[in-house]
Amino acid sequence: MTATLGTSTSIGTSASAGGTGLGTDACDVRELLERCRDAVTPALRAAVDRLDDASRAQAAYHLGWTELDGSPGRGGGKAVRPALARLSAAAVGAPASEAVPAAVAVELVHNFSLLHDDLMDGDTERRHRPTVWSRWGASSAILCGDALLALASEVLLESGSAHAPAATRMLAATTRELIRGQVEDLAFETRDDVGVAECLSMAAGKTGSLLAAAASIGAVLAGGPEAARSGLSTYGMEVGMAFQLVDDLLGIWGDPGITGKPVRADLRSRKKTLPITYAVTRGGAAGRELAAWLAADGEPDEDGLLRAAALVEAGGGRDWARAEADRRMDRAERALDGAGLDPRTHAELVALGRYLADRQY
Amino acid sequence: MTATLGTSTSIGTSASAGGTGLGTDACDVRELLERCRDAVTPALRAAVDRLDDASRAQAAYHLGWTELDGSPGRGGGKAVRPALARLSAAAVGAPASEAVPAAVAVELVHNFSLLHDDLMDGDTERRHRPTVWSRWGASSAILCGDALLALASEVLLESGSAHAPAATRMLAATTRELIRGQVEDLAFETRDDVGVAECLSMAAGKTGSLLAAAASIGAVLAGGPEAARSGLSTYGMEVGMAFQLVDDLLGIWGDPGITGKPVRADLRSRKKTLPITYAVTRGGAAGRELAAWLAADGEPDEDGLLRAAALVEAGGGRDWARAEADRRMDRAERALDGAGLDPRTHAELVALGRYLADRQY
Repeated sequence: MTATLGTSTSIGTSASAGGTGLGTDACDVRELLERCRDAVTPALRAAVDRLDDASRAQAAYHLGWTELDGSPGRGGGKAVRPALARLSAAAVGAPASEAVPAAVAVELVHNFSLLHDDLMDGDTERRHRPTVWSRWGASSAILCGDALLALASEVLLESGSAHAPAATRMLAATTRELIRGQVEDLAFETRDDVGVAECLSMAAGKTGSLLAAAASIGAVLAGGPEAARSGLSTYGMEVGMAFQLVDDLLGIWGDPGITGKPVRADLRSRKKTLPITYAVTRGGAAGRELAAWLAADGEPDEDGLLRAAALVEAGGGRDWARAEADRRMDRAERALDGAGLDPRTHAELVALGRYLADRQY
Repeated sequence: MTATLGTSTSIGTSASAGGTGLGTDACDVRELLERCRDAVTPALRAAVDRLDDASRAQAAYHLGWTELDGSPGRGGGKAVRPALARLSAAAVGAPASEAVPAAVAVELVHNFSLLHDDLMDGDTERRHRPTVWSRWGASSAILCGDALLALASEVLLESGSAHAPAATRMLAATTRELIRGQVEDLAFETRDDVGVAECLSMAAGKTGSLLAAAASIGAVLAGGPEAARSGLSTYGMEVGMAFQLVDDLLGIWGDPGITGKPVRADLRSRKKTLPITYAVTRGGAAGRELAAWLAADGEPDEDGLLRAAALVEAGGGRDWARAEADRRMDRAERALDGAGLDPRTHAELVALGRYLADRQY
């Protein structure tokens, strides 16, 4: 499947397809991410090296630097957040190197939340490898996560920047938002009356808040102007929301070969994602049938899954999620337009945002 | 039982029994703790009020402000750490009110660690009330603890003090120490070769480090001189170690009516506490018999418990722990002597330290 996100406003992988018209394509974005990861990894490793032996080994495994047998790892995630942090410093004219502590700190907070969420969600695998809790036990995942969270503050405050306290404070408030999102996500599991607004607010906490922090923390640490910090933060939040909406679409209609998850994974687990919540609450008869299907017990069969996916679509959930993701991307790009950023970095941010919100499904 | 700690240097509940000779007795200490708690609680409540609804309710219950049915609580712990934080500001001549954010932050970090430790240790009760994880589930205890840790940084950095970044950085490094201590404590459960030095290092992480931070953070936030900050930190560390040694003695010989724990609780759980580790590793034949008893499976009977307690004593564990606690208290008080502190506060710190390290057993 090659369809790009959106039915009306097509968000292509090439920035030249619209918006700023500055040419940065998906290939450049992958290069950009790789370059950023290479620049940040030594400082991230130095930070993790300060942990106690057990937490250090678990963090190194979790981050993809080692395998379970201690051999070198095959690398971790795309390090999107460190890249955003570096770009946000460059966007206000600061050398990218100045943003390294900010990039390390957001990556530490992100991985703190992954370690704890994997445990709470009972996920035994992440990126096709056993999760820390499933390998070393719940206590290790709790402590390793705690250690990464504390380390994030240390790294930022040691940066020597006069703006490190502001950056640390913002990251702590963001952590509170992450936690609110996860609290609500867990609470939704046992509720059958979750509305679209609540669901969007949960996603803003769980996904949007850390991308907003990542996309602005480099500018904060560099003491960039308020208009730039605020524009970058809005950009990060809206890209995060678009990313989540696309992720939810992929959770129903994604190609397992591309997503790495079973087909219709979110329906299989009867998860109340955004398109599903939309269809249930605003989808009329189809929504009511979908609600009854979600409330049923037992393992859903393949026919049931197909029917449920059709009900999400009939209830308007698919179209709404696509359109909402488009609206979010528009808002993200408009926020950058008014922020007075360095033009080259501006174009890179647009390209990175589109890359993130444009996974095939 | 009314014996005070120590066989040679008796540490009485009255400071006039030795040391500085400044009169502050146990009754005054209880008043001091109450006064400090009353001064800090409004700010602590205001901080907790920022959390999401679920975490706020759990934190309020955990802190003793509410009961499970939502009715007003009967109050929480003694708030020793906030009291130390306030005294450490007063010790360098700062108004106690300036230390409030520091007092709130150490109390938040302390309770973050209690929430997570209760879950990891499987403790279903704290102060005769169900623990947060046993009432609301593991995820709630993880998230509520995470939220309190993030909140601690926020509160400190919002204080407006020019020294808030230094205080926050110290508290983050302390959190890393707390985690190291808990990691080691959990690892010791499955090891039978733990030495006294390792056990002391674990206690320094788990108990000493946060008392060291509490006893110096007010001075750090107030920008007090290095000699004072360092003396106060050493005092807190050594009082913490003495406290832990006494706690371990109470875990074997404490009166259940006073400790609130079953008689010989630590032997019952075959916990490798300091006096036990000393006897096992340095107690000759008695130590070897004790090691064999500790390695056995099954529920120990009452005769076995009595025999084990006698072996700890015969192996020198009881005398060593008493003498070590005395040495630690001496070091604590000597550290204050050289720190150039406000005399009245100095006397209060001495009295508070003795009160903490002098629980009857």
